[in-house]
Amino acid sequence: MAISQNITISQIAEKAGVSIATASRVINQPRTVKEETRNRVLLAMKELNCQIKRNTNKILLASFTDFVNPFYSQCIAGMQIAAKRRGYQLFLQQIENAENPSSYDDLINSKLFQGVIFCHNIPSGETFDSLRIKYPIVMCSQYNKDEDIPYVVVDDYNSAKNAVNYLLSVGKKRIAFINSSKNYSYSPLREKGFRDALKASGNPVNDNWIIHLTDIDFNVAFSVATTLLSSCDKPDAIFCASDVYACAALKAAHTLHLSIPEDVAVMGFDNVNLTTMTVPTISTVSQPTYQLGYQSCNLLVDQIEGNPVPNQKIVLATEIVVRSST
Amino acid sequence: MAISQNITISQIAEKAGVSIATASRVINQPRTVKEETRNRVLLAMKELNCQIKRNTNKILLASFTDFVNPFYSQCIAGMQIAAKRRGYQLFLQQIENAENPSSYDDLINSKLFQGVIFCHNIPSGETFDSLRIKYPIVMCSQYNKDEDIPYVVVDDYNSAKNAVNYLLSVGKKRIAFINSSKNYSYSPLREKGFRDALKASGNPVNDNWIIHLTDIDFNVAFSVATTLLSSCDKPDAIFCASDVYACAALKAAHTLHLSIPEDVAVMGFDNVNLTTMTVPTISTVSQPTYQLGYQSCNLLVDQIEGNPVPNQKIVLATEIVVRSST
Repeated sequence: MAISQNITISQIAEKAGVSIATASRVINQPRTVKEETRNRVLLAMKELNCQIKRNTNKILLASFTDFVNPFYSQCIAGMQIAAKRRGYQLFLQQIENAENPSSYDDLINSKLFQGVIFCHNIPSGETFDSLRIKYPIVMCSQYNKDEDIPYVVVDDYNSAKNAVNYLLSVGKKRIAFINSSKNYSYSPLREKGFRDALKASGNPVNDNWIIHLTDIDFNVAFSVATTLLSSCDKPDAIFCASDVYACAALKAAHTLHLSIPEDVAVMGFDNVNLTTMTVPTISTVSQPTYQLGYQSCNLLVDQIEGNPVPNQKIVLATEIVVRSST
Repeated sequence: MAISQNITISQIAEKAGVSIATASRVINQPRTVKEETRNRVLLAMKELNCQIKRNTNKILLASFTDFVNPFYSQCIAGMQIAAKRRGYQLFLQQIENAENPSSYDDLINSKLFQGVIFCHNIPSGETFDSLRIKYPIVMCSQYNKDEDIPYVVVDDYNSAKNAVNYLLSVGKKRIAFINSSKNYSYSPLREKGFRDALKASGNPVNDNWIIHLTDIDFNVAFSVATTLLSSCDKPDAIFCASDVYACAALKAAHTLHLSIPEDVAVMGFDNVNLTTMTVPTISTVSQPTYQLGYQSCNLLVDQIEGNPVPNQKIVLATEIVVRSST
């Protein structure tokens, strides 16, 4: 959908005396807003002479930063099935730089789609506002903590806590954590889960053993894991925020002739195919990847069609999958 | 582009006394057709009162069967850059069943795109004709041998020949081949290269050691490789049509306590990230994956814009990358 070009959502919000988030909800999810507030925003829109033009193509877009991470293929499969069942077509895009507001210009000006699923961060502020006044939006496996937007994620805090508790239960005490960039919404949550589980067990948290990597890059993770495991004072387990990192840690241990899991246990996150392709196979936190895609697409279609949705913020549970690396 | 709905390309071709392929070329690549033939087709179209309506959105589509194969991510990166440089937006789709003509109905009826890159087979006959009268089409890493359509591929025959010659050069003589489904256009070409290299060397070709797998599936390949390597009369090398198969062969050898490359050498195809993530790393045939995407997108835009393109069938060379598995 779109509103008349010259009126911004902040003008509407200001005139109605509500926040931008509320004005956006009136347009995209009217049933979630109190009737009195809704009427105020609709009156402001009427006075500003701006009308909502709804796009009637039954076409959705899912936006990714890359297709390298094997995590996404199952997620896409889930979205695809949900879109088809609801009578929508789904297209995908690769965005060049998700942090750069100008990367979203085409999407803000496009007339193709009825709604968008973002599988990456969106810059807060103006870009976010322009996107959400234009489209119903859902975030998949990510969320913007500064914005009130529907999302489907996993319970990152408890997943990391469970993983650490499992490593402690098999006798590991000196646990390192190769985490992703703090830009990912899951990263601080997994770190908090990691720290809390260690603290609760009475084992020390070594800040030098908590490492943040910018990208899901095998080579960088291999180099970091090699450094960790070459030290005299080395960890006896490495918990990794991605199976790609875990695969790198496995190879680093192998290269240093450490036995797995005796000298060092390795645990991943995601449960992508890779975890069964290695020797030894990799224990991991299994994400319901297909469900993440399926439910985020359903949530988007519900918004487009104005269906009442009791829970717009869905948090799915994960499972520990034990294989030979722990 | 589209022609008036009730006229089919075969009616135009029949009236003009040319093949359907030629009629399609007049519409999509007019400069590749002799003037006299072109005039005949244009006259037939005039008499049938059908006009070409060109879509002016600068939007392209790339169609995939899945995003699981890590091969595609580099390919998408290449398409993306080419599209951007030429001023086009690129969207992607996952097609549910590429063999089923009805999977193409939405695309045939869509008005969104100016041209399509297919990274998979398309059923010959009516579907192919409907698509190519609607859009300029390019095939990437695939081609339909029954249809005259622009494509960008690698030299599969010589790539397989070079791989086998390399395995022979390191002393291997009993070489098995885990190939993909015969539905992929590359599969018979790689098989011919494999057979010809072995024959030329005077080594026997064992038909039981040439196996076709339906999908790029790690588990099936692992089971096949385990069977091959469990036999008393076993190969001393396995050449694989995909790095995923090679990774499975590596694991099968490891599980059977065979040493690599002494007891069995393993060689893949594609040079995806996976080949450096395993222990040992995997020798492979490196495809110019980024270039496949980049050039196929350029070829598509050239067709859309009616630029003269001397070579519509581009065959790129590959390279042997030697790592520890051979």
